[in-house]
Amino acid sequence: MLDYQVVLNSRPRKNGEPVPENFRVEEACLPADLNPGHVQVRTLYLSVDPYMRCRMNEDTGTDYLSPWQLSEVVEGGGVGIVEDSRHDSFTEGDTVASFSWPWQTQAVLEGKLLQKLDPQLVDGRHSYFLGAVGMPGLTALLGVREKGHVTPGANQTMVVSGAAGACGSLAGQIGRLDGCSKVVGICGSDEKCHVLVSDLGFNSAINYKRQDVAARLRESCPTGVDVYFDNVGGSISDTVIAQMTEGGHVILCGQISQYNKDVPYPPPLPASTQEVLHTKHITRERFTVLNYTEKHEAGLLQLSQWVREGKLKVLETVVKGLDNMGVAFHSMMKGGNVGKQIVQVSE
Amino acid sequence: MLDYQVVLNSRPRKNGEPVPENFRVEEACLPADLNPGHVQVRTLYLSVDPYMRCRMNEDTGTDYLSPWQLSEVVEGGGVGIVEDSRHDSFTEGDTVASFSWPWQTQAVLEGKLLQKLDPQLVDGRHSYFLGAVGMPGLTALLGVREKGHVTPGANQTMVVSGAAGACGSLAGQIGRLDGCSKVVGICGSDEKCHVLVSDLGFNSAINYKRQDVAARLRESCPTGVDVYFDNVGGSISDTVIAQMTEGGHVILCGQISQYNKDVPYPPPLPASTQEVLHTKHITRERFTVLNYTEKHEAGLLQLSQWVREGKLKVLETVVKGLDNMGVAFHSMMKGGNVGKQIVQVSE
Repeated sequence: MLDYQVVLNSRPRKNGEPVPENFRVEEACLPADLNPGHVQVRTLYLSVDPYMRCRMNEDTGTDYLSPWQLSEVVEGGGVGIVEDSRHDSFTEGDTVASFSWPWQTQAVLEGKLLQKLDPQLVDGRHSYFLGAVGMPGLTALLGVREKGHVTPGANQTMVVSGAAGACGSLAGQIGRLDGCSKVVGICGSDEKCHVLVSDLGFNSAINYKRQDVAARLRESCPTGVDVYFDNVGGSISDTVIAQMTEGGHVILCGQISQYNKDVPYPPPLPASTQEVLHTKHITRERFTVLNYTEKHEAGLLQLSQWVREGKLKVLETVVKGLDNMGVAFHSMMKGGNVGKQIVQVSE
Repeated sequence: MLDYQVVLNSRPRKNGEPVPENFRVEEACLPADLNPGHVQVRTLYLSVDPYMRCRMNEDTGTDYLSPWQLSEVVEGGGVGIVEDSRHDSFTEGDTVASFSWPWQTQAVLEGKLLQKLDPQLVDGRHSYFLGAVGMPGLTALLGVREKGHVTPGANQTMVVSGAAGACGSLAGQIGRLDGCSKVVGICGSDEKCHVLVSDLGFNSAINYKRQDVAARLRESCPTGVDVYFDNVGGSISDTVIAQMTEGGHVILCGQISQYNKDVPYPPPLPASTQEVLHTKHITRERFTVLNYTEKHEAGLLQLSQWVREGKLKVLETVVKGLDNMGVAFHSMMKGGNVGKQIVQVSE
């Protein structure tokens, strides 16, 4: 069977949107022999995530991850099965994941880049390791816990932007599980609003493309916004912050509305929003899940337990086929996904 | 018996050091009748703290606290005994504290500004409520826990600057209690170094006024600095940060070396230090204890338990008499204290 890989075909233009044609599929060639310390894997699922937009730029990447290189294989979060191993920690049939998984149908990685996973944690639903029981889940959980100051019994209202996305859909539920008395989501379609309220237990949801966000927030959060889980930035966030309470907390998780712009991260705020933060003593600290590796193991156990107990509902949008990586990424960046956008590469 | 109060007599000149004469003692006049909701207290102990330097400026104050006004009574942390009360929560003889305690021998405060305290928590040593079982203790404890990423078994080295001060002397001990394998203090005299190592269990101590900090850090922290509890800022901090490990964490608690300068808080860093933080992915988040009020109650219980068990040693420098407030503040700003600087106003 032939192997395939996805390489970076071109970069988006400065301040431009990515397009599926920024990626190119070509035949892959695996090494004939496995070197010591290396592991051969078959790819089950690959992840596309908003942060990847930053890795498409020539110069910046993210603070933590370098830019992807033209005509080289793209990498990101992936999960798969070990087919052959020359690393002591892995044997054939193991379920493994990595944040440096090449976009290939089969791949050879250094064992040190892989984590072994227990499929029982997710009742065999391996794709969850890229979402609710993976990086987006940890980002939601630790973001809420490290930056949210959520206090049971304190009658707090949480607002989540990008609420129907991989991270936002979990963050709102976790806000409730951890003790917020009300959770309101902001998203980009009526269908997403319906899912948030009917399936995930959000108290209400706002379609920013069709509704007056400020007015709807005043209605749904009459005592103000105590905690704001921000995935989007830009004018939506300015509107939310203007309705925050004294001593409130912004969880600065992502700023997807700004990723196509040539600005540093986090992007600068308008003076009026800075003034609100200052006068109301609102914290707004950047949250980076990679800074909390010491809490990842316990976090994944908590997430998997909630998922198995049915307390944390998981939404996924799954596209099939490695050749759809570019389409899936483009669609996710435009809000085409409900929950975690996944590409299924093999069964 | 006559009552006395301390008012702000003058402000330090721009970029200047405070002097005792910035404060003036005068006779106080208590209201003849207590209004509803008010409480009359006798002052036992008053606190002088580095942050107060910012309240001496005309324009800035701190983010959280407004500037003190000329010829008006100065306020800060205080502890005392209720003498008379027209507030339901307080009765004569109660031990109470406030962060808005007027620098007066006796005072009348709104009850809502007071907290009732249990003297058994500190075995009757009321001054501890201004130090180890008060704001400096909470700052050390929550600073370490919220920003330090201390992980038992991870073989971490912590460095504390301002290590013989109210907060630093506790932060180093808490770093050890929470799991650091090594704690090194930086302070300004050989006597302080001796106290840190002999009395508080620091592994080593560096006198920055007499020793080469970079060289002594290389000696005492051969694997690098994983966690840095920063009370001082300036060149000492640049030197420590240069020896931090990949993925390390700065707890940005205070910057006393910069408080006499007319710069915003936190003060800007040299480009070379910013570069180290960036390339090594070192976090450096500002820590403000007032942002964590939901964790204060549990924190004070933890601190008082450690103190009673003898696990957390308490250092105090006590000066007597309200008329010495200015002298005590000036001395503390120049490093004259070992541990918490306290003024005892009455027995």
